[in-house]
Amino acid sequence: MADSNTPAGLLAALRFDDAGLIPAIAQQHDTGEVLMLAWMNRAALEETLATGQVCYFSRSRGALWRKGEVSGQAQRLVELRVDCDGDTLLLLVDQAGVACHTGRRSCFFRAVRDGALTEIAAPLVDPATLYGGR
Amino acid sequence: MADSNTPAGLLAALRFDDAGLIPAIAQQHDTGEVLMLAWMNRAALEETLATGQVCYFSRSRGALWRKGEVSGQAQRLVELRVDCDGDTLLLLVDQAGVACHTGRRSCFFRAVRDGALTEIAAPLVDPATLYGGR
Repeated sequence: MADSNTPAGLLAALRFDDAGLIPAIAQQHDTGEVLMLAWMNRAALEETLATGQVCYFSRSRGALWRKGEVSGQAQRLVELRVDCDGDTLLLLVDQAGVACHTGRRSCFFRAVRDGALTEIAAPLVDPATLYGGR
Repeated sequence: MADSNTPAGLLAALRFDDAGLIPAIAQQHDTGEVLMLAWMNRAALEETLATGQVCYFSRSRGALWRKGEVSGQAQRLVELRVDCDGDTLLLLVDQAGVACHTGRRSCFFRAVRDGALTEIAAPLVDPATLYGGR
């Protein structure tokens, strides 16, 4: 029986892993920048679709993770895409501020260059201002 | 002891999961299109870095998966990036032809639109020409 809040065909197309999770790539919708990868369970996906604000499942905390709830750096869902095997999600988002807890726009701020892992992006905000004192 | 073929600091920064795998996002380096997500083990990563041609680990076959070896649709590595937690790779690649086994450029060819999961990209090549008769 279809869930009235879930788009037709979506849940049938998805394959959650043995832990009930599916990886979700967040990409800034207009620039194409890949911001982060995190995980969703079914409840996180349904909340994301219902609210339009991206909610992940934190594997370390074992709980829903409403992106930006503490830091203010929320992600508005622009479009949800599904891959051929139904085992990965691509979230086109509009990222407020920075995606990374280090204060950088993207979590992928290290690259292999000249034979070594190198930082290629500096923090745009001090992480203490995102999480400190709250 | 450092592996002379592995960039300094890279392996120390990475966290493979309990199965010895790490997810790798492939993104077309110039257009920003997210092509696919697959998995690497340490051997796949080292081969990719040594050859400059992307090699994954196929979870279904339990073996190295040299992308394009059968289909010809190879990925040349342009840059390897690592996320803040060291548990996801972002591969900037130059994709020959199509990334998806369905003949589409990207594996993310389905999107939620108007309340239903919808195909948003058609095959560019017939999968039979990629895999048939070989």
